[in-house]
Amino acid sequence: MNIPFRKSIKLMDGYVSGEQPQGDGWVKLNTNENPYPPSPKVVAAIKNAANGRLNVYPDASATQFRNVAGELFGVSPDWILPANGSDENLTIIIRSFCNPHDTIAYPYPSYVLYESLARIQNCQVQRLRLNKSYQWDAEGAGNVCRPARIVFAPNPNSPTGNRWTAAQLHQLLPNNGMLVVDEAYGDFAAEPHRGELLKDKRFDRRIIVTRTLSKSYSLAGIRFGFSIADPEITSGMQKVRDSYNCDTIATAAATAALQDQDWMLRNREQIICTRNRMLTELPPLGFSVCPSQANFVWAIHETGRHQQIFELLKRRRILVRFMQFPNAGVNNETLDGLRITVGTDDEVEKLLNAMRQVVAAEC
Amino acid sequence: MNIPFRKSIKLMDGYVSGEQPQGDGWVKLNTNENPYPPSPKVVAAIKNAANGRLNVYPDASATQFRNVAGELFGVSPDWILPANGSDENLTIIIRSFCNPHDTIAYPYPSYVLYESLARIQNCQVQRLRLNKSYQWDAEGAGNVCRPARIVFAPNPNSPTGNRWTAAQLHQLLPNNGMLVVDEAYGDFAAEPHRGELLKDKRFDRRIIVTRTLSKSYSLAGIRFGFSIADPEITSGMQKVRDSYNCDTIATAAATAALQDQDWMLRNREQIICTRNRMLTELPPLGFSVCPSQANFVWAIHETGRHQQIFELLKRRRILVRFMQFPNAGVNNETLDGLRITVGTDDEVEKLLNAMRQVVAAEC
Repeated sequence: MNIPFRKSIKLMDGYVSGEQPQGDGWVKLNTNENPYPPSPKVVAAIKNAANGRLNVYPDASATQFRNVAGELFGVSPDWILPANGSDENLTIIIRSFCNPHDTIAYPYPSYVLYESLARIQNCQVQRLRLNKSYQWDAEGAGNVCRPARIVFAPNPNSPTGNRWTAAQLHQLLPNNGMLVVDEAYGDFAAEPHRGELLKDKRFDRRIIVTRTLSKSYSLAGIRFGFSIADPEITSGMQKVRDSYNCDTIATAAATAALQDQDWMLRNREQIICTRNRMLTELPPLGFSVCPSQANFVWAIHETGRHQQIFELLKRRRILVRFMQFPNAGVNNETLDGLRITVGTDDEVEKLLNAMRQVVAAEC
Repeated sequence: MNIPFRKSIKLMDGYVSGEQPQGDGWVKLNTNENPYPPSPKVVAAIKNAANGRLNVYPDASATQFRNVAGELFGVSPDWILPANGSDENLTIIIRSFCNPHDTIAYPYPSYVLYESLARIQNCQVQRLRLNKSYQWDAEGAGNVCRPARIVFAPNPNSPTGNRWTAAQLHQLLPNNGMLVVDEAYGDFAAEPHRGELLKDKRFDRRIIVTRTLSKSYSLAGIRFGFSIADPEITSGMQKVRDSYNCDTIATAAATAALQDQDWMLRNREQIICTRNRMLTELPPLGFSVCPSQANFVWAIHETGRHQQIFELLKRRRILVRFMQFPNAGVNNETLDGLRITVGTDDEVEKLLNAMRQVVAAEC
């Protein structure tokens, strides 16, 4: 049998997401999930929807969700395009704008899924190499980004956790393409955006902001994200998305989640507090940490023995994310480090205790 | 502002799904939903999942669902690839196998979403024109399908409701491409498939069967479908799908639905019984009907005044699907008719009463 896959699919490796151990007893700090449960109002909305008419199709235009999200970001509902998780948003965007051989650019290191999506669409990838402070210079950014069809910029960035200003993001705008600002971690920033970028005239409206309910709203399990962009953009993307890409229950959950801002903000406060503790306590153990505006900390150990540390923690049933970025360093060397999700205080206590033992014994 | 959409996206019209009136009091027979609710075990599974850990990502490999589905179809779990609705399956398939300018073929009239998906991927479309009995001849089928990259065949077909044999489907197999048998309505057939096609050596394993929970399992609201194919095929498609394309709750619901076969089969029996009534009572009103193996009836009125009948029914808050297929007739004329979903007996009683008035008064 010769399966006639497209060549680019045959050649590519699939994207590998973080481990999801199914057993109990893990301290799971590897996929940036929120350690706190979603609002009880979300759980109630799900149960209410379960008692409703699941035999009929969802409201394809997700009217109520779009009303609520539009209000939150100060835009009309036709600026909002919901999707089955933020990753589906990114897929819809690539399929809307990129022909084969078009170029996708993104700061590096950041979210490598962009490269997988580019390969599926048979696009070229240009990495905008970040310097030691995880910044770019305007000229270098212009050279890489101006010819691109899409530039993806996670803000705050992952794995580094830093955040770029609107003026810096403007340096990434392609001449004839779209800038996609992926705000998956946006709510954890010191001053979260509420649609300001979308109204900033410098971007010529060629900007899409993507958001997810997975992180700040504690809903990784329901898969819900949305794009915010000019209605001329969302109406084109509308043709590419599946008509019923968001189900009745997930949409009800997402709507209830956005409506309970207090719940999200309380968890955010707690996470920022725990994050500050990690930023304080990791350096005495030999880590240099990047000031984070997200719900994780990027930690580089002076010994460079990240894989060993990762494995020793895993033996103690503590999962962090060991990440390697080939050619990311100033001399093209591989950059590696640990991306550690901000858990509960109790989880972080366990992490730090284990880390003390691991670092003392092995490094 | 010049939005840099791909040319094919700019030029295409989006797919238009059936109307979903949000108010109450409609007899809704336009989108082939099951009129009966899902199993109470499904509702319980959803509520149980809602009490679980929604803050963490789903099991990306949907292990339990794949075990249950594999058992039902007599294949190992690695033959099963779940998706966010059957439409997402079709999208994953096209993106896995079709480069721009490749050809997609399908019997016509049938599910026109295949054409929308082809346009998004910038593919060519070849229609295999059906004759008056909604059949093809082997030679014509071979000419259209052999050079295609993908042939989609809904079986039973929509809107006609007829079903093709394995020998007929084999006539559609491309020389170097995939045959996708879309069994969205498969459970309503007289002898539902349980994976036989997949084991039929004639297909050279270049066959994918797609299934949905929307119709027979009464779960249009949760968006869950799956592909069944050789593991070499599913593992390639795996690279194209989003890692977490099915959420925790929908996956729990789908698993519980497949586990309650009795519930599905009872509703199926009732729907077949009501379908037979429609097939008997529509002809005296001037309709020619196609023997249906699905949960709808394709009805062509002797006056050809389908749009008027549709509108008069709609005024009475009864929705059926008025469909037009340009160039589908033997002399390239437009074929039109009404596709009427099999509702409850009560709904069908209302439909038939209204139809009697409408036909008597207007036709």
